[in-house]
Amino acid sequence: MMFAPLQNDSFLRACLREPTPHTPVWLMRQAGRYLPEYCATRAKAGSFMGLATNVDFATEVTLQPLERYPLDAAILFSDILTVPDAMGLGLSFAQGEGPRFAHPVRDEAAVAALEVPDMERLRYVFDAVTSIRRALAGRVPLIGFSGSPWTLACYMVEGAGSDDYRLVKSMLYGRPDLMHRILDVNARAVAAYLNAQIDAGAQAVMVFDSWGGVLADGAFQRFSLRYTQQVVGALQRHKDGQRVPVIVFTKGGGPWLEEIAAIGADVVGLDWTVNLGRARAAVGDRVALQGNLDPNVLFAPPEAVAREGAAVLDSFGRPQRPDGRWDGHIFNLGHGISQFTPPEHVSALVEAVHRHSKTLR
Amino acid sequence: MMFAPLQNDSFLRACLREPTPHTPVWLMRQAGRYLPEYCATRAKAGSFMGLATNVDFATEVTLQPLERYPLDAAILFSDILTVPDAMGLGLSFAQGEGPRFAHPVRDEAAVAALEVPDMERLRYVFDAVTSIRRALAGRVPLIGFSGSPWTLACYMVEGAGSDDYRLVKSMLYGRPDLMHRILDVNARAVAAYLNAQIDAGAQAVMVFDSWGGVLADGAFQRFSLRYTQQVVGALQRHKDGQRVPVIVFTKGGGPWLEEIAAIGADVVGLDWTVNLGRARAAVGDRVALQGNLDPNVLFAPPEAVAREGAAVLDSFGRPQRPDGRWDGHIFNLGHGISQFTPPEHVSALVEAVHRHSKTLR
Repeated sequence: MMFAPLQNDSFLRACLREPTPHTPVWLMRQAGRYLPEYCATRAKAGSFMGLATNVDFATEVTLQPLERYPLDAAILFSDILTVPDAMGLGLSFAQGEGPRFAHPVRDEAAVAALEVPDMERLRYVFDAVTSIRRALAGRVPLIGFSGSPWTLACYMVEGAGSDDYRLVKSMLYGRPDLMHRILDVNARAVAAYLNAQIDAGAQAVMVFDSWGGVLADGAFQRFSLRYTQQVVGALQRHKDGQRVPVIVFTKGGGPWLEEIAAIGADVVGLDWTVNLGRARAAVGDRVALQGNLDPNVLFAPPEAVAREGAAVLDSFGRPQRPDGRWDGHIFNLGHGISQFTPPEHVSALVEAVHRHSKTLR
Repeated sequence: MMFAPLQNDSFLRACLREPTPHTPVWLMRQAGRYLPEYCATRAKAGSFMGLATNVDFATEVTLQPLERYPLDAAILFSDILTVPDAMGLGLSFAQGEGPRFAHPVRDEAAVAALEVPDMERLRYVFDAVTSIRRALAGRVPLIGFSGSPWTLACYMVEGAGSDDYRLVKSMLYGRPDLMHRILDVNARAVAAYLNAQIDAGAQAVMVFDSWGGVLADGAFQRFSLRYTQQVVGALQRHKDGQRVPVIVFTKGGGPWLEEIAAIGADVVGLDWTVNLGRARAAVGDRVALQGNLDPNVLFAPPEAVAREGAAVLDSFGRPQRPDGRWDGHIFNLGHGISQFTPPEHVSALVEAVHRHSKTLR
């Protein structure tokens, strides 16, 4: 495949701790319900999965935020539960509710039956990656993604979102052998899935360990981080002569920052509870950092949004160190953007990040 | 008031970093729905608030877990929202849902109208404290408690529990002046409330900053910790010649452990994401630590419960240091016990904590 040359490589450069003229910014869930044009496309598609499985619709919504805002990266529009769906668990989205699996994995037989799915069942995702990459025409890089082995396991065992993770933790503490088998299958599936996204055109990949932070110290390392590390170790890191950065984001992972930074990823995502300056001092010479504005800041007036965005940049500090080398910072939210966000507040944020970060160079 | 002399002071001693023959253990929400006898009393009372506002019922349920398990402390049975209810916000508990306020605090006029409530409106709480203390007859000490100023503010502004804290954070970022006014009123009210509990017989008090962990770094310090510190600074610390320990627990507060340990509390509560050994190394010479088993461990078989309980103790290590001085550890869960917990698993935990902790002495 031949793709257009990249015009704005600030995101990839920051991932690799190379100099950039400004701090690159993108937003988790930037293609989403807060945008009226997204809602219009989704209405045409009929459902969330109708949107995610249709290459044209997925391409359309992925590019929508880039038409509004000078964002420095695009992220594949998809769902984190595509992989367990391809395993045959039967994903559905009930109206007004979260995702649900028809066949949750709760007993020995169900665990034994799990297999890495044929990647052909996820062809719609890889086709979307290629289509989006072509439509981007080199404007900004495209990020692919997957849920982490542990985060997928939470949904697979619980069968849906959960307040307390009772079922999955009962299995973890009561039948750790079953849990390890699920996680190993998931790790191999996620690695194959991300490698196929890279083959299809993804220029960076991100592993969302959205529920790693619900685990206890000790359990996190054994049941989440270990399998994320297995994924990272199995990824192709170069494609067509370009380095493909890997981002790992554990929401609530602040207590384990140094351990997360040691598993081989290029970038570690941070939620808003983490002090960026302290995180940089601890691991900034080994990994780039991505984050970490509280998405609720976007409900405040645009002046406050701009001020809080600048405060995040100040907290990281000047990316060039006194010794001349650069540390990497990618500006992002510490969680997906809320559907209730006023779109014009996002303009204020992106503009402020670009403007203020130039003053730190 | 004259109360019976205390027979088991291991909890108070551990709070003050004094030697104890075993690690004391109590469980957040130990008087709760996982106990059939609690459900029976609640059925008699008709409702949650019917239970909490009736001195006899509150005394009965507070003592129930002590009849089953050799716990080392009792905690007042009450709700964290009694104070805003006394401010006139109109607390209710809809069937099968969480708490709800009829009059949430969302605009300038509502904020201006807020006042520290007359403590006489909370007399039912103080009467319960005295009644429970008498009924305990010196078996174990009684802990009083309150929500933190920030945690109360979350409910007061949102009007109920929240997934995203959108309303309260919108006020925080958009109208910080209003938020500071709410928090100052709350801090003064909470201090008066806890001091009255101490006057009524509480032998230690705990501030639950249950939602401090949803705040961003920086915002946590300005909007939660500062006001918890105001409360701690306003508390009477001795009563009848005895030190009254103060426990502060911020769920998700791991990133700010050193700052929390510096506000003057005797004990810092930790959730299960925090490594107890590292926390002890960081602040164990200044405060005792309370925590931090994941309550979901209690769904595992009793052998696993005992093993995980022992692992928490091992993570803290031998409480007596090589220099002969003692660091303080109170065993607890990192969150309230689930209503789905099998009561016999709690027996296994309490027994294991007592047994294993003796081997660490």
